[in-house]
Amino acid sequence: MNTSIGDNKTFPKGTTWTPVETALNDLKKSLSVNLVSQKIDVIKALGFVLSKDVVAKRSNPHSSNTAVDGFGFAYKSIEGLENSLNLMTGQITPGSDILFNVPEGSAVRILTGASLPNGVDTVVLQEEVTLHEDKVYFNNDVKLGENTRKAGEDITDGDIVLKKGTRVRPQDLGLLISTGIEELEVYLQLKVGILSTGNEIVKKLTDKNSNRTLDVNRPMLMSIIERWGYIPIDLGHVDDNENKIRAKLDKASQICDLIFTSGGASTGNEDYVAKLLKSDGQLFHWKIAMKPGRPLALASWRKTPIIGLPGNPVAAFVCSLVFGRPVCSLLSGEGWVQLPSFLVPAAFSKIKKMGRREYLRARIKNGKVEIFHSEGSGRISGLSWADGLIELQDDVTYIEKGDLVRYMPFSGLI
Amino acid sequence: MNTSIGDNKTFPKGTTWTPVETALNDLKKSLSVNLVSQKIDVIKALGFVLSKDVVAKRSNPHSSNTAVDGFGFAYKSIEGLENSLNLMTGQITPGSDILFNVPEGSAVRILTGASLPNGVDTVVLQEEVTLHEDKVYFNNDVKLGENTRKAGEDITDGDIVLKKGTRVRPQDLGLLISTGIEELEVYLQLKVGILSTGNEIVKKLTDKNSNRTLDVNRPMLMSIIERWGYIPIDLGHVDDNENKIRAKLDKASQICDLIFTSGGASTGNEDYVAKLLKSDGQLFHWKIAMKPGRPLALASWRKTPIIGLPGNPVAAFVCSLVFGRPVCSLLSGEGWVQLPSFLVPAAFSKIKKMGRREYLRARIKNGKVEIFHSEGSGRISGLSWADGLIELQDDVTYIEKGDLVRYMPFSGLI
Repeated sequence: MNTSIGDNKTFPKGTTWTPVETALNDLKKSLSVNLVSQKIDVIKALGFVLSKDVVAKRSNPHSSNTAVDGFGFAYKSIEGLENSLNLMTGQITPGSDILFNVPEGSAVRILTGASLPNGVDTVVLQEEVTLHEDKVYFNNDVKLGENTRKAGEDITDGDIVLKKGTRVRPQDLGLLISTGIEELEVYLQLKVGILSTGNEIVKKLTDKNSNRTLDVNRPMLMSIIERWGYIPIDLGHVDDNENKIRAKLDKASQICDLIFTSGGASTGNEDYVAKLLKSDGQLFHWKIAMKPGRPLALASWRKTPIIGLPGNPVAAFVCSLVFGRPVCSLLSGEGWVQLPSFLVPAAFSKIKKMGRREYLRARIKNGKVEIFHSEGSGRISGLSWADGLIELQDDVTYIEKGDLVRYMPFSGLI
Repeated sequence: MNTSIGDNKTFPKGTTWTPVETALNDLKKSLSVNLVSQKIDVIKALGFVLSKDVVAKRSNPHSSNTAVDGFGFAYKSIEGLENSLNLMTGQITPGSDILFNVPEGSAVRILTGASLPNGVDTVVLQEEVTLHEDKVYFNNDVKLGENTRKAGEDITDGDIVLKKGTRVRPQDLGLLISTGIEELEVYLQLKVGILSTGNEIVKKLTDKNSNRTLDVNRPMLMSIIERWGYIPIDLGHVDDNENKIRAKLDKASQICDLIFTSGGASTGNEDYVAKLLKSDGQLFHWKIAMKPGRPLALASWRKTPIIGLPGNPVAAFVCSLVFGRPVCSLLSGEGWVQLPSFLVPAAFSKIKKMGRREYLRARIKNGKVEIFHSEGSGRISGLSWADGLIELQDDVTYIEKGDLVRYMPFSGLI
């Protein structure tokens, strides 16, 4: 569904604007995922995406053991009238190689994590017994199997531990190691090219170019890609010259899985990138009903997807998260991700234009979410002030103080 | 305030347990922060903590410019009866070196991001005008200064851009560059040593040691430190031997800002780390009323703080986040961080023991938060199943379905 919005200046009359949701769905459908696998040592797997289900080579726990420091015995020893057991000499420590055999009617001291010896199925906490003349007396009732962990109760040898498409986090690394995995298959990391365009952009100021604009987007986008755990490829900067941009994209499309450009995606005569994507590539969408984010181009070049971000750093930042994040996760083999969000009461009120999605720079304070004093897209400082974004849906027209709004913490986005 | 809890088996009678909040406050007070500064290129600043306020060297925007593609003119030109202006030849593009001077009564075509030339203070959107015979006619009312961004409206040369103690995120990098910063002062990255202890622990299984426990904690904790942006130092593994542990800690305390140990912090005879910390170091707390997390030691060794994590990987993981995260951020110069959390309706009900804090492995589903089927601390797979933790306060005894509970997404913790 496309929306035509003509009642405000941001979305001029007579133009059809694509809703964000439509653009995202079209993007998702249009992308073809080409993945290559490699084997790596488990110890290096952090941040990689599994290209195969991983099957446990060892149970967890690998043997039945005790969860506490206490006394171990056979439960049937105390099923009769007896509430005391004979204490054996010695104790069982984790990793000990000494083989114990605990006869019925006896108990042995055993320390947290130690494997249960023959004859032990139950452990009572040391604080729950009284010791007297080599006898163990129970202060409380005891349940069969208490304070023990059964071999394989978490994972059994042969179980699928983690599924294909899982991005390995620190705890997943722990799980993989605990189940005996030493090597595993993962996808190659995504390579994302970053290209800045525009005659006005310079990397460094000199006396001669002091009126120019510094290239903020390239390092910012490179660092976002780095944070996401992919490989940023610095494609440099090109002037607004059709041939130079074409040559750059030809080369970049051979080495990158995805390209982010910034600048040159507007309707102006100088917007070479948008023009070129339309004439020589495939331009899917470029008039998207969102703020900030105009202009934004979703396209491909010799089969490599391109996200043509606005030149404005605030808009480039927001669009890289809203569009770039799920596109990257899909292309990396992890699948399309939903950006994490939470409903939080608004500390502000606001009138909003119907028919476009808006992203506001936001910050949590005392359990409510407040917004930056200006929505101006030139205000880069607002991104630093914020700890997240608020997403206002297309059909929202008014937010009252205390209304629940959708807040997306930056920690879940970058 | 200490709590004495004797009505359950997890917190045995006759022992004083320290509430998590007390332990955290004591930790915060006990830590002394010793920081060293270095100068780095702004481009490398991602993840570093600023050791000085950063002062802007350039205003943002550096010159007044247009936020849209349109026509620029002096507002006073149209204050009279006139609603048309003379269109000048040519156009102004961003970064153009051509000097324009726009006389009263005239307008010039100007593209997004271009600096306003002499004589222009207002820009009207191109879609809001009609062009006819070199004249520009306005379709709507125009406001003074509309669609323009004033020089310095975001940041003025000399303003403080980012404060000492700020950890540089991608957007902060953007802000720094846009305000002309090329070099800045940051603290050296925190060095966090990771030591595994316990006779039962092995790095690799062989035919001879197949009953042992694999060292899950060391790689897991190393990868957590890496994720936090600090430098993990692999201190290897030591057996339960007092002299070896002492030698290891002596050496480690010279090169690390903080040490995480795992294992050996219990009350058992074999818990050399806890014993040693008590006799030769300073042991502040080691009986903390939390689940999972028993035993946990907060200590220091020759002035280097030590967090003695439990050997159990689930407990080690949770304690590293709850205690390790704020300690690391304080020692790194960023200050004590509050772990981000959100109130989410519970998809479960649960009876809880009074007087201890509990952390449950949790996952968001359809706007509610569900918990892992087992609270057993041997269940490492629950950490992979989860996308966050639920924190239940000490005084909570019952959770009903639909109650709001405090959910902490892993994305905000690791």
